[in-house]
Amino acid sequence: MLAVARGTSSIARTKRDLKVFSGTAHPTLARAICHKLGISLGKSEVRKFSNDNIFVRILENVREKDCFVVQPSCPPVNDGLMELFIMIDALKSASARRVTAVMPYYPYVRSDKKDEPRISVAARLVADLLEAAGADRVLTMTLHSEQVQGFFHVPVDQLSAVQLVCRHFRRKDLSKAVVIAPDAGSAKRAGRYAERLGLPLAVADKRRSGAHDDTSRFERIVGDVDGKDVLMFDDEIATGGSMLGLLAYLRQEHNVGKVYAGAAHGVLCGDAVERLEASSFEQIVITDSVPLPRKKRSEKIKVVSAAPLLARAIYNIHTGASVSALFT
Amino acid sequence: MLAVARGTSSIARTKRDLKVFSGTAHPTLARAICHKLGISLGKSEVRKFSNDNIFVRILENVREKDCFVVQPSCPPVNDGLMELFIMIDALKSASARRVTAVMPYYPYVRSDKKDEPRISVAARLVADLLEAAGADRVLTMTLHSEQVQGFFHVPVDQLSAVQLVCRHFRRKDLSKAVVIAPDAGSAKRAGRYAERLGLPLAVADKRRSGAHDDTSRFERIVGDVDGKDVLMFDDEIATGGSMLGLLAYLRQEHNVGKVYAGAAHGVLCGDAVERLEASSFEQIVITDSVPLPRKKRSEKIKVVSAAPLLARAIYNIHTGASVSALFT
Amino acid sequence: MLAVARGTSSIARTKRDLKVFSGTAHPTLARAICHKLGISLGKSEVRKFSNDNIFVRILENVREKDCFVVQPSCPPVNDGLMELFIMIDALKSASARRVTAVMPYYPYVRSDKKDEPRISVAARLVADLLEAAGADRVLTMTLHSEQVQGFFHVPVDQLSAVQLVCRHFRRKDLSKAVVIAPDAGSAKRAGRYAERLGLPLAVADKRRSGAHDDTSRFERIVGDVDGKDVLMFDDEIATGGSMLGLLAYLRQEHNVGKVYAGAAHGVLCGDAVERLEASSFEQIVITDSVPLPRKKRSEKIKVVSAAPLLARAIYNIHTGASVSALFT
Amino acid sequence: MLAVARGTSSIARTKRDLKVFSGTAHPTLARAICHKLGISLGKSEVRKFSNDNIFVRILENVREKDCFVVQPSCPPVNDGLMELFIMIDALKSASARRVTAVMPYYPYVRSDKKDEPRISVAARLVADLLEAAGADRVLTMTLHSEQVQGFFHVPVDQLSAVQLVCRHFRRKDLSKAVVIAPDAGSAKRAGRYAERLGLPLAVADKRRSGAHDDTSRFERIVGDVDGKDVLMFDDEIATGGSMLGLLAYLRQEHNVGKVYAGAAHGVLCGDAVERLEASSFEQIVITDSVPLPRKKRSEKIKVVSAAPLLARAIYNIHTGASVSALFT
Amino acid sequence: MLAVARGTSSIARTKRDLKVFSGTAHPTLARAICHKLGISLGKSEVRKFSNDNIFVRILENVREKDCFVVQPSCPPVNDGLMELFIMIDALKSASARRVTAVMPYYPYVRSDKKDEPRISVAARLVADLLEAAGADRVLTMTLHSEQVQGFFHVPVDQLSAVQLVCRHFRRKDLSKAVVIAPDAGSAKRAGRYAERLGLPLAVADKRRSGAHDDTSRFERIVGDVDGKDVLMFDDEIATGGSMLGLLAYLRQEHNVGKVYAGAAHGVLCGDAVERLEASSFEQIVITDSVPLPRKKRSEKIKVVSAAPLLARAIYNIHTGASVSALFT
Amino acid sequence: MLAVARGTSSIARTKRDLKVFSGTAHPTLARAICHKLGISLGKSEVRKFSNDNIFVRILENVREKDCFVVQPSCPPVNDGLMELFIMIDALKSASARRVTAVMPYYPYVRSDKKDEPRISVAARLVADLLEAAGADRVLTMTLHSEQVQGFFHVPVDQLSAVQLVCRHFRRKDLSKAVVIAPDAGSAKRAGRYAERLGLPLAVADKRRSGAHDDTSRFERIVGDVDGKDVLMFDDEIATGGSMLGLLAYLRQEHNVGKVYAGAAHGVLCGDAVERLEASSFEQIVITDSVPLPRKKRSEKIKVVSAAPLLARAIYNIHTGASVSALFT
Repeated sequence: MLAVARGTSSIARTKRDLKVFSGTAHPTLARAICHKLGISLGKSEVRKFSNDNIFVRILENVREKDCFVVQPSCPPVNDGLMELFIMIDALKSASARRVTAVMPYYPYVRSDKKDEPRISVAARLVADLLEAAGADRVLTMTLHSEQVQGFFHVPVDQLSAVQLVCRHFRRKDLSKAVVIAPDAGSAKRAGRYAERLGLPLAVADKRRSGAHDDTSRFERIVGDVDGKDVLMFDDEIATGGSMLGLLAYLRQEHNVGKVYAGAAHGVLCGDAVERLEASSFEQIVITDSVPLPRKKRSEKIKVVSAAPLLARAIYNIHTGASVSALFT
Repeated sequence: MLAVARGTSSIARTKRDLKVFSGTAHPTLARAICHKLGISLGKSEVRKFSNDNIFVRILENVREKDCFVVQPSCPPVNDGLMELFIMIDALKSASARRVTAVMPYYPYVRSDKKDEPRISVAARLVADLLEAAGADRVLTMTLHSEQVQGFFHVPVDQLSAVQLVCRHFRRKDLSKAVVIAPDAGSAKRAGRYAERLGLPLAVADKRRSGAHDDTSRFERIVGDVDGKDVLMFDDEIATGGSMLGLLAYLRQEHNVGKVYAGAAHGVLCGDAVERLEASSFEQIVITDSVPLPRKKRSEKIKVVSAAPLLARAIYNIHTGASVSALFT
Repeated sequence: MLAVARGTSSIARTKRDLKVFSGTAHPTLARAICHKLGISLGKSEVRKFSNDNIFVRILENVREKDCFVVQPSCPPVNDGLMELFIMIDALKSASARRVTAVMPYYPYVRSDKKDEPRISVAARLVADLLEAAGADRVLTMTLHSEQVQGFFHVPVDQLSAVQLVCRHFRRKDLSKAVVIAPDAGSAKRAGRYAERLGLPLAVADKRRSGAHDDTSRFERIVGDVDGKDVLMFDDEIATGGSMLGLLAYLRQEHNVGKVYAGAAHGVLCGDAVERLEASSFEQIVITDSVPLPRKKRSEKIKVVSAAPLLARAIYNIHTGASVSALFT
Repeated sequence: MLAVARGTSSIARTKRDLKVFSGTAHPTLARAICHKLGISLGKSEVRKFSNDNIFVRILENVREKDCFVVQPSCPPVNDGLMELFIMIDALKSASARRVTAVMPYYPYVRSDKKDEPRISVAARLVADLLEAAGADRVLTMTLHSEQVQGFFHVPVDQLSAVQLVCRHFRRKDLSKAVVIAPDAGSAKRAGRYAERLGLPLAVADKRRSGAHDDTSRFERIVGDVDGKDVLMFDDEIATGGSMLGLLAYLRQEHNVGKVYAGAAHGVLCGDAVERLEASSFEQIVITDSVPLPRKKRSEKIKVVSAAPLLARAIYNIHTGASVSALFT
Repeated sequence: MLAVARGTSSIARTKRDLKVFSGTAHPTLARAICHKLGISLGKSEVRKFSNDNIFVRILENVREKDCFVVQPSCPPVNDGLMELFIMIDALKSASARRVTAVMPYYPYVRSDKKDEPRISVAARLVADLLEAAGADRVLTMTLHSEQVQGFFHVPVDQLSAVQLVCRHFRRKDLSKAVVIAPDAGSAKRAGRYAERLGLPLAVADKRRSGAHDDTSRFERIVGDVDGKDVLMFDDEIATGGSMLGLLAYLRQEHNVGKVYAGAAHGVLCGDAVERLEASSFEQIVITDSVPLPRKKRSEKIKVVSAAPLLARAIYNIHTGASVSALFT
Repeated sequence: MLAVARGTSSIARTKRDLKVFSGTAHPTLARAICHKLGISLGKSEVRKFSNDNIFVRILENVREKDCFVVQPSCPPVNDGLMELFIMIDALKSASARRVTAVMPYYPYVRSDKKDEPRISVAARLVADLLEAAGADRVLTMTLHSEQVQGFFHVPVDQLSAVQLVCRHFRRKDLSKAVVIAPDAGSAKRAGRYAERLGLPLAVADKRRSGAHDDTSRFERIVGDVDGKDVLMFDDEIATGGSMLGLLAYLRQEHNVGKVYAGAAHGVLCGDAVERLEASSFEQIVITDSVPLPRKKRSEKIKVVSAAPLLARAIYNIHTGASVSALFT
């Protein structure tokens, strides 16, 4: 429960007006958020017709209510997105006062620029589609690039997973540790972890064969890692290919100690979990922004919950309190 | 090839400016349309990243070109839709002069009204999303209800499959045939077939238990079907449940002769093909607006191609000739 | 007065913020609604300059108020529409918090599809114009087709007149009655009356000469009407031509008993009232969604008031209570 | 015919692409414009259903055509406006390349400011509605205030009737003439006539009782009119009340010679024609921007045709030639 | 302090929700407004980077707050405008409930019409840009032409400086005074002062050489000024050129007594102050809508504060009380 | 002149339709572009009124023309922006067919994210304002972050200055050179130069005291620079502070050889030129995207012209040829 510095009646009113709904993407997270808020999850029905069309029905009155829909991106990504659009439309046409899309992991987030001719900046397209569907606000966490926030005309609150992940590492002995960025593009992002943990930074100088080629080749490590424990940070771990590749390179070319990985989003597609488990990583730390079946969790893959942070942000958005105060 | 009443140079110019692209939903149809138009299919790359995000790249210059994207709705429906949005966005941001979404079978077409509280008119939402993605026009065929055309602000050309399907039935002996509408809601639609074939109309009086309940119960047949051959028409055949149910009812309660079914769209989801094959239907006639694997086609399930009609419509849209002239 | 489960002060506050205005179309209905709500009609001035331009002035402060403008469609239709647009604009630019257009009978409602080339879907156009004028919501009743609701981007509440009209018929002896739809297009609509009254359904199979030709010819009655009392239902009665034609056909070709007519909207244009009075209809039941001069009412033309239903809907919209709860 | 400095084939192409349609407001003007352009009037059908709803059908293919709809404002003003909106919508949804509303006399033009609380700037509202209906451009003549042009987001060409009207007065003996503005608000407008005719200016100092009160009282004439012939100019003559009142005041309080009146728009509502005929005005000069039945014209009420100017403007808009060159 | 007829708790709530911010244009005015409202000025930081780009940071939480940004137009005009756009955007993306641009002197207000070919109606463009930046309302004072209010889609409250300026003149002996309009275009505006002060009106008949030529030539004075004290009124005094020119003409051609000038906006650019001080004007009365350094004020240039009027308007907008009541 | 593979008549037509205008920001660049295109610069008048308001007049007919306005960002930045908005608006309302804003250096480009609470993503705001003013396209070069392209809904072509700058360095002896990124955030950008020149990459690990604090402190150089020639690359050089600081650090802490700097945009504000001239930089290479007075150029500050690349891009946009082909 949140500690709330208000009179009881005011809280009661707040609770009558605040509604949190969940799509089918991550109901566990939605329930955890509601638990923190001390409210029940909003009632809705989401199913597919035999022709693969999604049907959504909101099962309680939402007129003049302040509604939040929890739907991070996870496979099947496009079903999740259309479901979100349809839920938002259903809520708005049912006269909800305000609808906030809660997308801790934002879909198509890496398609944030036009680095080849005749492609779509799909992260921007998704922003347009969300607004066309009627979203009044967005609440998200650790975007791949901060500029994505500028793709929206509606207000966006971006939370940061850096604190959540660092809090876990602080308990460890970091006396001879170094933070490494898996490539030049993530140097700034890794730098933020380094600053918070008070550690030096190294950057892997990596050259990809083509723009969308998953294979890549490390040229060298820029910075000093020999004899050090290494903390690798990125915004997300998808196939795990980049991080595993860097791990192998470090083990082969350098004399490194323990190697950890950390990321905001554990996308973990394909056999990523199995490969990470089998690796020489000491531990991988992620948040629960993307659903990970409980059975796939282990000591090695540590999941930190973002639910308390999301709940606080929702509460502050709802009551008009500062959200930036949450991450400074 | 279309017979074109113009000088050669003018056709040549036309062909340079006209581009037809295909998403992954129904490339066979797109190729058939291009064959009729005497042009090659536009080059594009559509694939999925490991994280289930779609990536689209247009592989030829489309600046100032008149582009058509062929993408009817078929499972996986939402992948097909997002793919279409992304292709349209990629074409528009690559400075295409005009992008027309060619959707012979329109997605979410039956979600065209708010017959329950707090649901989405998803057919309208899809129209909004298409416009947000940048579609300048839509070309479609036989919408579930004609009002769906009004959901768009951009011009929509709606072709009719009635002619295509009727042409097939005209070759048969219809001397003692009657047209039947599977329920009151489709009476008007079936009436159009009856008018064109010069046959009387009957209507099945059917009561559903609930709004989205697939189970249903026939009360009676309004009109005279005993001793008659029966032609059942609807806009689409999805599971085939409605039509098979009516067939069973007719066989049990009435003394009917041969029974045929016809529809614009052979959605044929689940084991619809198998069940129709096993039924006492004489024949089912549909168009190729939705892809049907060639191996699933048979004498019983007759597929009439809509490609010539679509090609003519595209040609007329491109050259500014009348499209309504095609279906009167 | 509405029974309201709230404390007195809360009602008082509600009454300060809620304003109902009337255009010149149907002030009687507006006053009846206000009477039910226990408030006075908002003060406004509407008149025409000598050059036929409409002038509207709102005569009381409406800043931050929740305003409703009652203006159903009735001749002169276009004066009524422009007047509504101008009132909405005047209210919005006077800083009204929200403006809801209350249009129990929606204008141009039958122009809901493009069934001929190069015509306007005028019902959709009117929706666009309402939104351009600044309408935040619409409250309407029994649209000709349910899809019209999808023509709006702002929330629309559609009430149903079926209950109001059926309530009247329930008092009669319906033991040998049948419901008839005047043509295939209204089969679904008539079916809803049949279901609510628990009566069988028949459909008149009627062929029009042309799309907009008022003359028409009945082919046959699909279903059993001989020896029965007949209840004819449609969404509106305009000239009465369709219903009188069907009545004549029934009297000539079938042995029917008493014949009743019912509709949501008594448009009753031209000499419709006189012709209906002179006919063999037992009774015609309509609501007061369209103004009917009191002198034209009689035992034969029974007008059921929609004011209580509209007042409840306005109250629930204003207070954020469920509107769908009103018609289930 | 316009003298056109181009090759024949180019003109032929131009004529294929240019379409001029007329609403029911002023077909005489539309035909005169078409005659000047050497093209036939576009075929359309406009009528009213029995329920007072307007129905419009465009009877020829307009795909990719450059369409102009001639519809000045005249009673019944709101029928004319809705008809125009519907025609524009029909043309746009029929894929017209561009639709220009040709409104030589613009409706609601005097409602161009908010000089009382809680009124609508209806001239601006009409601009919004025209854009919502799909108008791509507007062609108008002599707006009441020049700022009205700024109410539009689409390009507006405003022609001036000053030349047309002055040309007529130049033939007269103006040696002892003075131009008078009927009130302070029209001083600038009358000044433009004075400058073009090289005459001195006087202003009637008039005080109205209320903002919309048609009665008014002249305080004095600011400037010298005694012993002079007087030319009174305004943008429009509606009831004629202002001008007749000033005439009476001049005759009573000053020793004036012949008195003439001139205006761009002869709205002439009510018994204006009769009252002007019966007055001591020497002559009243107007254009045919608003229809005036031929029988009402006389030597006293001189109508100068704006058709040649409108035709040239349409031709220049269509071919991309300068329009401003027409009025300098 | 405003006298407020409400309970204490309600005022307290009001004060929590109301925020007034200032750009760098006129902080003195903003502080005076806040003083009248009894609140502190909102905290913000506005500065320029070395590359001349403006940076704005709002230094207190504004979620769900009702924010007003005081920024009249004054040199450097375009810096002030961009600063205003950026402040509005910062407030909106920080989730302010509503942002009102308080622009007592509106920028580009004289560019309100297209009196030459191919120019911008810049006053309209600024309205579009303000709306694009996210402004929800505008509060302004004495626009050059009243039609400018119609350039906005958001609600605009226009206050009038006539009262403020006239109040000052009422204390003087006006027994032989006449009001003069500096040219025909300002006759209506000056007429409003004349009506309020109960004085006769004269108009200077002035011909400019070109549309934007600052040099001009007086033809004559229309009306009687000899032997009179003269009050010259306009909406603004920029270079003072027009008024000084008229003063010189009056002194040379007519036998006038004391001459005063009054205007809503003392733009006073270039050496206007010096030239006015050196002139034979008895006094010049303006408001503080545009900042005038205190040292430049004198007995001759009298500045009446608009702060009390603006504060009342802000308070009434905030609380939903009538604003029009303030100026009648 | 561009080599153009077309017939003469076609080029002639092209030249009639293509217009390039210049604001006051960088007429030298605009003229150089026109020279390359073989056309004259479009005639326009841009000046300021005495009240600091900008006035723009387009002095030639632009109806149906394809117009480009060259206006990179340079001090006074906000004057340049407002001037651009006004020019675009003037062109659009003068019926230009298409207006492309040519902004080689994009204003507010570094305000591309919300890295502090309650600030504006001003680069996005500028995109919104450009679209509100009527821009149909944007042509720019080397944006600070590639995501800025996604801030637009209209098509954007982004050219790259990497080639232009690298071409200059290729002539030098790079056998023992290393590329260095001035901070982690520019590592990716510098990496592109390193790849094109085939050189290794180093990154300066720099910690700023605050988000907008210009003072900063280098922790270490990540990578090997001792004994090497160093090439420092960034997107722009503003005050030069970052680069000069790094130069000093390299000289003090490392044994480096020649040090060069390169950037797309030579903003060079304040006394940047003087400081760079006085430094131990061997050479600084920039393009002419921002105006640099000829007298300030020297052997040390080498300016490469972007005019040929911009001219080619404009030509290809105008004729519908591929623009991406220009930079691959």
